[in-house]
Amino acid sequence: MIKVGIIGGSGYTGAETARMVCTHPEMELVTMTSRRQAGIKVSKTHPFLKGFVDLRFDQALSENSDIDLAFLATPHGASMDHVPSLLERGIKVVDLSGDYRLNMPREYRQWYGIDHRDVVNLNKAVYGMPELFHDAITSAQLVANPGCYPTCAVLATAPLFANGLVEGKLIVDAKSGTSGAGVEPTQITHHPTCAASVTPYKVGQHRHTPEIRQALETVGQGEVDVVFTPHLVPIVRGILSTCYMTLNEKMDHESLYEVYEDFYKKSPFIRVNGTPNIASVSGSNFCEIGFELAGERNLVVMATIDNLTKGGAGQAVQNANIMFGLDQSTGLKFPGLGV
Amino acid sequence: MIKVGIIGGSGYTGAETARMVCTHPEMELVTMTSRRQAGIKVSKTHPFLKGFVDLRFDQALSENSDIDLAFLATPHGASMDHVPSLLERGIKVVDLSGDYRLNMPREYRQWYGIDHRDVVNLNKAVYGMPELFHDAITSAQLVANPGCYPTCAVLATAPLFANGLVEGKLIVDAKSGTSGAGVEPTQITHHPTCAASVTPYKVGQHRHTPEIRQALETVGQGEVDVVFTPHLVPIVRGILSTCYMTLNEKMDHESLYEVYEDFYKKSPFIRVNGTPNIASVSGSNFCEIGFELAGERNLVVMATIDNLTKGGAGQAVQNANIMFGLDQSTGLKFPGLGV
Amino acid sequence: MIKVGIIGGSGYTGAETARMVCTHPEMELVTMTSRRQAGIKVSKTHPFLKGFVDLRFDQALSENSDIDLAFLATPHGASMDHVPSLLERGIKVVDLSGDYRLNMPREYRQWYGIDHRDVVNLNKAVYGMPELFHDAITSAQLVANPGCYPTCAVLATAPLFANGLVEGKLIVDAKSGTSGAGVEPTQITHHPTCAASVTPYKVGQHRHTPEIRQALETVGQGEVDVVFTPHLVPIVRGILSTCYMTLNEKMDHESLYEVYEDFYKKSPFIRVNGTPNIASVSGSNFCEIGFELAGERNLVVMATIDNLTKGGAGQAVQNANIMFGLDQSTGLKFPGLGV
Amino acid sequence: MIKVGIIGGSGYTGAETARMVCTHPEMELVTMTSRRQAGIKVSKTHPFLKGFVDLRFDQALSENSDIDLAFLATPHGASMDHVPSLLERGIKVVDLSGDYRLNMPREYRQWYGIDHRDVVNLNKAVYGMPELFHDAITSAQLVANPGCYPTCAVLATAPLFANGLVEGKLIVDAKSGTSGAGVEPTQITHHPTCAASVTPYKVGQHRHTPEIRQALETVGQGEVDVVFTPHLVPIVRGILSTCYMTLNEKMDHESLYEVYEDFYKKSPFIRVNGTPNIASVSGSNFCEIGFELAGERNLVVMATIDNLTKGGAGQAVQNANIMFGLDQSTGLKFPGLGV
Repeated sequence: MIKVGIIGGSGYTGAETARMVCTHPEMELVTMTSRRQAGIKVSKTHPFLKGFVDLRFDQALSENSDIDLAFLATPHGASMDHVPSLLERGIKVVDLSGDYRLNMPREYRQWYGIDHRDVVNLNKAVYGMPELFHDAITSAQLVANPGCYPTCAVLATAPLFANGLVEGKLIVDAKSGTSGAGVEPTQITHHPTCAASVTPYKVGQHRHTPEIRQALETVGQGEVDVVFTPHLVPIVRGILSTCYMTLNEKMDHESLYEVYEDFYKKSPFIRVNGTPNIASVSGSNFCEIGFELAGERNLVVMATIDNLTKGGAGQAVQNANIMFGLDQSTGLKFPGLGV
Repeated sequence: MIKVGIIGGSGYTGAETARMVCTHPEMELVTMTSRRQAGIKVSKTHPFLKGFVDLRFDQALSENSDIDLAFLATPHGASMDHVPSLLERGIKVVDLSGDYRLNMPREYRQWYGIDHRDVVNLNKAVYGMPELFHDAITSAQLVANPGCYPTCAVLATAPLFANGLVEGKLIVDAKSGTSGAGVEPTQITHHPTCAASVTPYKVGQHRHTPEIRQALETVGQGEVDVVFTPHLVPIVRGILSTCYMTLNEKMDHESLYEVYEDFYKKSPFIRVNGTPNIASVSGSNFCEIGFELAGERNLVVMATIDNLTKGGAGQAVQNANIMFGLDQSTGLKFPGLGV
Repeated sequence: MIKVGIIGGSGYTGAETARMVCTHPEMELVTMTSRRQAGIKVSKTHPFLKGFVDLRFDQALSENSDIDLAFLATPHGASMDHVPSLLERGIKVVDLSGDYRLNMPREYRQWYGIDHRDVVNLNKAVYGMPELFHDAITSAQLVANPGCYPTCAVLATAPLFANGLVEGKLIVDAKSGTSGAGVEPTQITHHPTCAASVTPYKVGQHRHTPEIRQALETVGQGEVDVVFTPHLVPIVRGILSTCYMTLNEKMDHESLYEVYEDFYKKSPFIRVNGTPNIASVSGSNFCEIGFELAGERNLVVMATIDNLTKGGAGQAVQNANIMFGLDQSTGLKFPGLGV
Repeated sequence: MIKVGIIGGSGYTGAETARMVCTHPEMELVTMTSRRQAGIKVSKTHPFLKGFVDLRFDQALSENSDIDLAFLATPHGASMDHVPSLLERGIKVVDLSGDYRLNMPREYRQWYGIDHRDVVNLNKAVYGMPELFHDAITSAQLVANPGCYPTCAVLATAPLFANGLVEGKLIVDAKSGTSGAGVEPTQITHHPTCAASVTPYKVGQHRHTPEIRQALETVGQGEVDVVFTPHLVPIVRGILSTCYMTLNEKMDHESLYEVYEDFYKKSPFIRVNGTPNIASVSGSNFCEIGFELAGERNLVVMATIDNLTKGGAGQAVQNANIMFGLDQSTGLKFPGLGV
């Protein structure tokens, strides 16, 4: 059994990671930390874990705690203070924050507003999107788990950029459930504010923009100009991304379908369907993808994920599976709620 | 034109009151106060009022402001600091807080947790439910606008208690939209928390319990044991109250219908329908009422209101209309959104 | 008083039109027709109209009914059977269907799948978007009321095309409440299907696409390639359209704001705000518009309307006001629910 | 491996049963029938099962299909045509319809409107609520899986009736997600109709009323007068039941807690918590129960389940586990989504 610690377990990401780990056949959750909730039972903070997680939150990871794997569900800016010592102790790390996603310290500074304090490990971190970078993850000690929006947008469009089929401008119009905003109440997630609305936010300024660009430029051949508009929609879980691109040359639906099927032929969590659906992937690690042509060269690609699972804890466990030599689907065989 | 001030205008109640006043043919909104937002344009805080309210929030009502009527949208405990001076200046007051609703200072202390500091005016205040107490409102200087839950529950059941048709125990199972919880974000109204749930709260302890009891004991003949359970449901506006009573004697649906029609024959905002609907009353001052028998003497009465309108600002304007000798429907002829 | 008939009153559009007319100070609703509901009280089908509309549905408009104005809330394909005789009788007509929106019979055939049977009047019809075509509406006998999606998308972007500021490609990513799909239950609007999802539909194929293009090509100078993706979101009322364009030249936010303010300086229902909101316009005839730059020349314009009001019945009444020489705001001074 | 057939697999109950079975370590799904969808791939009708269920719908169970266990997800009135031949073939049956729940054919006729056509097996059927009737299920060939509402209401209140602690009148005010209404679109589940409302239906007339009564009279000592009011709330999955009873004698919270803990000490799917939550049980087989006193003897008990899982397919699998001698939790160790 892989001994697992979750650092920063009081929020949605931590709870979802615990949900994944506590039913995983090869993992054992041995510690969960929370500075603010130290000493409180995990199942008091997250009642749905009663009977599954019989731990109290630790203040911090103790010096002598014997774990093989740490999931960091800490906020941006905090993860980079945990990573160095964990790696030194030989613990493998999957970081669910944004701290190790952008390759360039300069870009981190630009979008996160602070200097990166662990550039050494930043250079070693692997961007943990298994459908694109499986082999690199195999030997990684530190995996930067992708953001929820980039997971959805990049999976939706990578086959096109990788095959050089589209022009270098991508518009991503993303609609996210409110759990993506985290556990802390704010005006934008106040139910009366958002329940009867669709709310665009951080238009043209969201820090997932460079992450999408970096991933697509890595798999593709040239620069990608990404316009990214996130919206909050009144659902709890799930993201639908509608992606607009221009084909270099006219293609038909069938040929595009083959491009996707071929690109994802070894990826068990990708479903290329007619119209992707959120309920179909809810609670699961799946990503559904569909597309339509709007005129000869205008292409609309849509994709759905559960932002907390495939867009967070599920993908983190998928990465950990790969890091530990397990089948990447281990513990993740949940088909989605469906309705 | 009646010159109107709204004291405490930054929340939902204040905004809804402004919405009612700014389209009222006999009222003019001359000032709106907010301690925290003093100096800010009202239409910046409440963008939907742009073009309707061209004021900035005042810190407080100035000594020389010339108003005829004040709506207090201040929190419980704050209203009683405003009322004495307003009344002294000859300004009529409709208080939307709970400060003047319970007749007994002792009961106020028990349920609101503080001593009442204006017992003199408490004794003069009229409970502003026009369908029950129209005549008293006519000559009132100070009206205590009913709570949203009591408005719905009391209108649903008063005809039965007034006619001595039911036993003295009333169970009110109320389902409220989240706007009733106010403008401040909290855990219970955080979208991810409440959007896929129905959340009972303050079960057996909500301060609207004694208000319901007092109103029904006033119109009826004996004591009423009220069990009141409020629930948050994932809608923004509206309350449905399902009320359970035991008939003293078997009655049929038709006779009950006549009781209601007769009781409310002078009440323009009551619709006795088959099944009350929330969308039908949304944005309006209407209350829909329906009922069903469940066995010979078990009676289920359901009613809907918009908690912010009939359960707040609309009823407040209805009260003010009566206080100023206008038709009680003036400025309130909005039929509900319907869908 | 203008005597008004509503043809086809059993659906949401008919009900919303009745809601507008029954509170309009210069209009009187004298007849409402519905083939399927003939003989039934309007307030039985639409309970929220009880006390406002005391009519029964007529089977059809009678030969001798004396009306000045007809709103056609009939389905696409049916309106063109009503229009000729109405116009012959001197009745002014606002058609809320799509029958008279596209100038070219050929294009109508392409997108609606049937031949146009009233080309004579099609040539006389005026496209009823008052913010763009006010003067033509003044003298029109027949107004084609715009579709809900085109209303939102065209108002959002017309100032840019009219001033030649953007390239000729427009991407409209629209999110609509489910009331836009009409009163008939279908799988796509079945609550369990759509309540926890965001559902793109008719991608690249929606018939509002040529309507948006035609309006923008009319106000602008060249061809516009419109990519339009409608999505159902789990709200009832409201549309948010997120529109993506490329500026011909770099512009700053302030200059863009001036373009909008100037273009709409005579339009009382346009609010140019920071971020448009759906609740702010709910139940009202307003359109809120905001925009952000995403890089130097990538422009994102967002707009919100209530699809049933500004996107339907409200705009229809606004058009009728203009046709009858009234102030265009008459009967439409409702600020939106706000929350 | 237990070979499983699902009869009637096109609706939500069938899909949820397939979801449970396809991840069950001791079960193998070998056939799924649907008259209307015969020949179609199951994963086309239920896309979330792609990769999990690689079957096409059969028209009916073939004579020579070799299954050990049948789940009947057929409508009321249809199940009793399937059961006799299945039992004759030695196949164990869990019927998810209402056909075998009420002991008395007379009562079945009264509430379901048709005569029971399989009284012989009705007399042998066991009511499949494992928390109450575990031992009888052990040896059953035919289990009548409880209705969703009775599951929630009976689990919430059985400890009180079994211990003779409350008077013989029970009011159940239930709030259900719309998936309980099934896959067919209807007016009551049309999104614009129900999304901003709470809708009581079949008040005093719902056929789950006698089922609740029968179960409680079986575990208790006397007659129980059940008043049951179901409401649709705008969520997809989940039921909250608020149950009102009168204690025979004053009791405190702690003593009540002990009654529940003791009664359910062998029941792995019961969580007695402060306030039950729907998201906590979503997708899972858990039931959360909480309670509050409202005055000395007025008791309010609340419980939540996922109507499709514990209130349907999950409980069906739990019953099957017991019938086949497995641990009742096998394949059901999913903690709920939590958020």
